[in-house]
Formats: sequence, C-alpha cells, structure tokens
Amino acid sequence: MAGRLSGKRILITQCNDYMGPAAAERMRAEGAEVIADASDLREADAAERVVGAAGAIDVLVANLAAPANLGVAASEMPDEIWHEMFDVMVHPLHRLCRAVLPAMYERKRGKVLVYGSATGLRGLAGVSAYSAARSAQVGYVRTVGLEAAPHNVQVNLIAQNWTENPAYFPPAFTETDAFNALLEQHVPMGRLGKPHESAALAVFLASDDADFFAGQSFPFSGGWNQ
Amino acid sequence: MAGRLSGKRILITQCNDYMGPAAAERMRAEGAEVIADASDLREADAAERVVGAAGAIDVLVANLAAPANLGVAASEMPDEIWHEMFDVMVHPLHRLCRAVLPAMYERKRGKVLVYGSATGLRGLAGVSAYSAARSAQVGYVRTVGLEAAPHNVQVNLIAQNWTENPAYFPPAFTETDAFNALLEQHVPMGRLGKPHESAALAVFLASDDADFFAGQSFPFSGGWNQ
Amino acid sequence: MAGRLSGKRILITQCNDYMGPAAAERMRAEGAEVIADASDLREADAAERVVGAAGAIDVLVANLAAPANLGVAASEMPDEIWHEMFDVMVHPLHRLCRAVLPAMYERKRGKVLVYGSATGLRGLAGVSAYSAARSAQVGYVRTVGLEAAPHNVQVNLIAQNWTENPAYFPPAFTETDAFNALLEQHVPMGRLGKPHESAALAVFLASDDADFFAGQSFPFSGGWNQ
Amino acid sequence: MAGRLSGKRILITQCNDYMGPAAAERMRAEGAEVIADASDLREADAAERVVGAAGAIDVLVANLAAPANLGVAASEMPDEIWHEMFDVMVHPLHRLCRAVLPAMYERKRGKVLVYGSATGLRGLAGVSAYSAARSAQVGYVRTVGLEAAPHNVQVNLIAQNWTENPAYFPPAFTETDAFNALLEQHVPMGRLGKPHESAALAVFLASDDADFFAGQSFPFSGGWNQ
Repeated sequence: MAGRLSGKRILITQCNDYMGPAAAERMRAEGAEVIADASDLREADAAERVVGAAGAIDVLVANLAAPANLGVAASEMPDEIWHEMFDVMVHPLHRLCRAVLPAMYERKRGKVLVYGSATGLRGLAGVSAYSAARSAQVGYVRTVGLEAAPHNVQVNLIAQNWTENPAYFPPAFTETDAFNALLEQHVPMGRLGKPHESAALAVFLASDDADFFAGQSFPFSGGWNQ
Repeated sequence: MAGRLSGKRILITQCNDYMGPAAAERMRAEGAEVIADASDLREADAAERVVGAAGAIDVLVANLAAPANLGVAASEMPDEIWHEMFDVMVHPLHRLCRAVLPAMYERKRGKVLVYGSATGLRGLAGVSAYSAARSAQVGYVRTVGLEAAPHNVQVNLIAQNWTENPAYFPPAFTETDAFNALLEQHVPMGRLGKPHESAALAVFLASDDADFFAGQSFPFSGGWNQ
Repeated sequence: MAGRLSGKRILITQCNDYMGPAAAERMRAEGAEVIADASDLREADAAERVVGAAGAIDVLVANLAAPANLGVAASEMPDEIWHEMFDVMVHPLHRLCRAVLPAMYERKRGKVLVYGSATGLRGLAGVSAYSAARSAQVGYVRTVGLEAAPHNVQVNLIAQNWTENPAYFPPAFTETDAFNALLEQHVPMGRLGKPHESAALAVFLASDDADFFAGQSFPFSGGWNQ
Repeated sequence: MAGRLSGKRILITQCNDYMGPAAAERMRAEGAEVIADASDLREADAAERVVGAAGAIDVLVANLAAPANLGVAASEMPDEIWHEMFDVMVHPLHRLCRAVLPAMYERKRGKVLVYGSATGLRGLAGVSAYSAARSAQVGYVRTVGLEAAPHNVQVNLIAQNWTENPAYFPPAFTETDAFNALLEQHVPMGRLGKPHESAALAVFLASDDADFFAGQSFPFSGGWNQ
C-alpha cells in the first residue's frame, strides 16, 4: 500500500529534538524517505551545508527548538537567553529557506513546513524571548509563503502549544498539581496534545493534498488560541 | 483497506450545494457512511428534524450556503438579501449544533465541521451581508468550540475562499479576463482551489487525527488571508 | 476652549444602555452636539426613522446591546435568546449604516463607530449567541469599512470586554469572590475598564485625528484579547 | 491650557528616523517633556546607557527602524540585510524594555509604546526579513504587555504601514505611477497616512486615557490590514 507521502524525500532538521522524532516516525510510516539531520544549525554556514548534503528534497521540515526558559520575566531576561532564541530558531530558519527555495522554485514544486509555536500567535507571560522568536517565525512564514506561492511552493507553519514533548513538558512537570491547574486554566481540551496528533497535521500539510495553503500558521493547542 | 473515516456516520447538510458534493464523495471514499441531506433548513424546526432522522452520527458537516450577492454595496443592501444570509447560514447552524451536541456530549465523542468562508476572517468590499453572516459562523464556532472541548467534541470551521464551486465561481465567470485580474490581485497561489483539496482538509478535520483542535477556523484560500 | 469634537453632530443610539451614557457625556465635554436616541431599533423601519429625525450627522455611534445571557450553553440555547441577539445588535447595525452612509458618501466625510465586544474576536464559553452576533458586527464593519474608505468615511468598532457597565457587570456581581476569581483568570490588568476610558477611545476614533482607520476592531479589554 | 501629556517625561529613541520627528513634535505640543535621543542602539550596552542618561521617564517611545529593503526575495536575502533588521529593531527593543521596566514596576505606573509595522501582522511579498523582525516586535509586545499589566504598566505597539515618512516613502517614489498603482491595490483609503495622524494615535496611547490596553498592536494602515 502506498502511503500519503510515498515518493517524497523529506529533510527534518534538529531531528532529535522537539517534534523531530514524532514527525520522522509518522512520515516514514506514510512512505516518505526521511533525511533526519541532527546538526547544530547556529553556525552561519550550517544550514547550507545540511541542505546541500541532503540532495534534492520535496519537503523541508524546519524543526527548530530552543529551551523556552519559562518564567524569566522580560524585565530580567539576560542577553544570552534572548539571543539563543534567535540564534537557534529564527536565523537558521531563514538560512534553511534560502538554501532550499531556489531549487523548489526551479522545479515549480516543494514545501517548507515550520514547526513553530502558538506563542507566536498569542501572548503568554513568562516567555517573552521565546514568543518574540516564535512570532518572527510566524511573520517570516507569512511573507515567504506569499513569495513562494506563485512558484507552487507552499510555506506554512504549525503553531503548537500544550503538546507532549520531553523538552517543554517533561514528566517531572506534567505529574504535578501545578501542571493540572495550568491545563485547567489554559487548555479547553483538558489534556496535552499527543505527538502523533501533531505529526498527523504535519503529514497532511506535507502531502499533495495541501497545495492551496500559503504562508499560514495552523494553531494546534487544544483550543488555547481561541 | 480501511479508510481514514471508516466506521463513521457523517451527516452533510444542504448536500447538493457549495462543498456538499465534493465532501460527500471524498468522505465516502475514505470509508464513511454519509447521510447526505438536501433539506431547506430555513424553517425553525427543520434542523432538528434532519438531525433526528439521521440517527446517531459521529460528525456533522454543517454545509450552509446562500448566494454571496457579490457587488451589492452595504449602503444599498436591501433587507431581504441581508436576512437570507442569516436565515440560511447562521440560524440553522445554531439549530443544527443544538440538535447534535447533547448526544455527542453524552458519548464524549463527536465532531462538528462547518463549511464557512474566509470572508469571515478578512474583509472584501461588496459582500457585507455575506461576510457578516460568515463572521457570525466564525465567532459561534470559536465559542462553541470552547464549550464542547471538555466533552471531547471538536467544533471547527473551514474558512475557504477562491475555491471552485458552481455557486460562487461558475465557468461563465472564471473564463473572463476580469476573473483572471481578480486572481492575480487577490490569490497569491494564482489559481482557484480544487474541491477535492478542500474536501481533503474536511476529511482530515473529521478524522480521529484531529482531536486536538477546538473552535478554530482554518483558512483555505490560496494565501488570500495572509 | 474648543473641544476635540467641536462642531460635530453625533447620533448615539440606544443611548441609555451599554456605553451610551458614558459616550454621550464625554463627547459633549469635547464639544460635540450629541443626539441621544433611546428608540428600540428592532422594528424594520426604526433605524431609518431615527436617522431621518437626526438630520445631518458627522458621526454615528452605533451603540447596540442585548443581554449577554452568560452561562447558557449552545447545546441548550433557545431560539428566542438567539434571535434577540441578532434582532437587537446585528440587523439594526446594517439598517443604521444603510441609512447614514449615502449622505456621508455624498459629503465625502463621516464616521460610523460601533460599540461592539471583544467576544467578537475571541471565544468565551457560555456566550455563544452573544459572541456570534458580536462577531457578525466585527465582520460587517471589516467589509463596510473597506467599502466606505474610498469615500473618506471611516467605519470602525470598539471591541470591549471587562468594562464597567450596569448591564453586564452590575455591582451585585462585581462585589463577589467569583468575580474576583474571574478577573484574575481573564484580565491581565486586574481590574475592570472604566466607562470614561472606553469613552476616551470613542472620542479619539470619532475625531478628525482618526481618518486613516478603516474597518478595524479595536480591542479594549485589559489584555484579555492578547 | 494643559496638554494631554502635560507633566510627562517621554524618551523617544532613534529620534531623527521613522516616526521620531512627528511623535516628538506632537507630544511636545501636548505638554510632554520629550527627551529625543539619536543614539545608534545596536551596541549591547547602548540601550541601558540611553535609558540611564534619560533619568526617570513616564513613557518610552521605542522608535526603531531599519531600511525595509523592499524587493529582495527571501530566496536571495543575504545574512547582512537579515541581521541588520534584528540588530536595529528587535534586540534593542528588548534591551530598552529591560532597562525601563523595573523602575516603572516599582512606581506602579509607566508606558512603553513601540513604533512597529503592520507587516508584523500581515504578509507582504518582498519584505521577509523586515516583516520577520516586525513580527518579533509584535510578539514581544504581546507577551511583555501581559507581564507588565499587573504592574499597571502598559506596553503596546503601533502597527503602521502606508504612512508618509522619508525612509520608506521618499518623494522620488511617491510621485511615480507605480506608487499610485500600489496605493490603489493595497490601501482602501486611497492615500498615505499623515505623520501627524500617526502621532495622534501615539499621543492617545501615551496618555492617561490609555491605561486599559495591554500587549496590543494597533494597525494604522488605511485599511490595508483588514
């Protein structure tokens, strides 16, 4: 049986972090050839090198994640935390896109799917640096999505929050009463999202069924965004 | 092979109009049992009757469409056009939801998917009544989505525009130069969406993969919304 | 001393309800001639009659409010509550605009300012009918704002919530512990807005300083919307 | 006669660029004591130095502008243009806020008003780096606005576009046919905004009348955003 991504070569960056493992697993199950890359993309030439090594790809999954540093107020946020957000999540996003888009434009086909955050769409006290960087991703995707659309290249973003992942929701946190209080206050659905649910959205957006979306950010947050 | 909607009973309203035919076809291809209903839902008791006749359903596809009456300025819009929008697209939406939600709440499972419009999210001169009614749908879904989420019932909306359908984009229109100029000005993707693409989004949102969305409106507009 | 609205004739509808009294007081203090009308606008010809009686006006303040009926779930919301929202807040808005816009278009000058609600922009469980109607206002203003802009007529909306007013926040409610818990959960500013603060926004938007806004909804909610 | 900002000490950064001159003029006319600072804020300690030199201030107007570099596609955008956006408009914004917020929190009073861009809210092909940086500002303000609200400190942003200023709309551009075509396509109001209109919004948001806004971005774009 042919999967919904069969025949597609998909590059997933920072593959061991954030949604990398879940996306890789489900995309492979749908028939994709996944190039899972674990490089640190902070260096100026890393993105180009990774894209070059991957060869021709149909879909770039720009999975970029820095620690959220939850709870550091903006009034006290040191430069080093601030810059790490942009160095890990924002600047590499542009370099990755700049590296993959020309070949996609030439073939008149291709997709970039960014694993972003719903904090790029709605405020959340305590994550100012993180949400600034995630908002930069949202804005970049919005504009690059418009530039890429006439080339039949789709650039979109998954704006997730409240989804299980070891980086932001480790068991040591999710098993506390404080966490349950947070869920009740913030997440109408009353639970965390499952990685395989988030990956299902990624599969849909990476598939040929999703050729008419341009520059969009798709909230995936159990209703937190509404 | 089991489809992605196999085992699901899905009621599609106003089934011969707007996205009804495309949704029915693709949902059946994915294994759903589709109850396609063509009733006029303007009468006060029609929604309840249709839902009652359908029996237990897993998904309601609230497909409701009135003519957009493109080009009638608000300053001249007569009451009858105005009211038709709300009578056809807004009031029946509430009555349909009121009729299906209690059983879904009881079973702790179910979905309502509304076929709305991107004019409920962004302005477009010349369709004031239509966009007011479509915005009412967006707002209703946003709030009912929050109410339904704790019951594990997902209420969401497809906010489409610039998608092929005989009601809003008849060939007599799409084959004109004026239409091509409109496309160029408004739709970054440079083409109309295909009904099967819109139906693919509907299949995704009706499936078990989409249990973590609540009250959302998903733009489907070739980038017009960004 | 000349006020910021001096020389302007301003019609305020449903003047004894919602933000009518505060807007009238502050607009008069800024030099406006305020025509405060208390008519029930539900009848089909009431809007036209009120506008006709007012004579030439520079600004229409469409202040329309129905009881929010907080706490009635959509799954149980009866038709009569549902329809009252649209009969009081939505249909009269269109009729008022239809009545005032032609003369404003002719003079190439004028403003419509709608007193709406932030529940037209964000969901809030328990007010489905109200938020659907308020969202219709938001969408109507967005589109009519675009139609009116080329005529140098500004149509905009104040999307307020959590603002003191006897209709939605009577003292019997605001003096309870439950209310304080609500404030803490929902309103970052930690207090209700004052009517005179909301009226200050209205004065600004009604003044000649606000000629470059079109179709916008301005949240006024102590941060609830963010 | 006392102005609406009388008694307020207001620091305006990058005061000779973007909206600095117009804001300074109108704020002074409203009675403010304006500290107009022209420092280059790209160096790591510049923001802190400027804030320290200003002494106690009531309002920070974070006016930060880099050239938009209109027309450079993301697929070809070099690192140096990219980084300049963040070095000029994003990193200094955080450093300025970090420097002014603690004293404002202590006094339980103060405002930060950011001169941002509507491209932080809506896409525009050809300005990917600029819109990413402006979106970072929007997201930062949204979250810091929530953090600051309980301290009675208001952090908000003016999201303008299509407003006269020598940096982005020099006469050599605005007197061309191409510019008029752009206006017609993008700006419902059919003209550029005037600096004094934008400054009027800034005066309103800097005044005591605007104590109930938190983390908001106010579009000022002649309807382009709707």
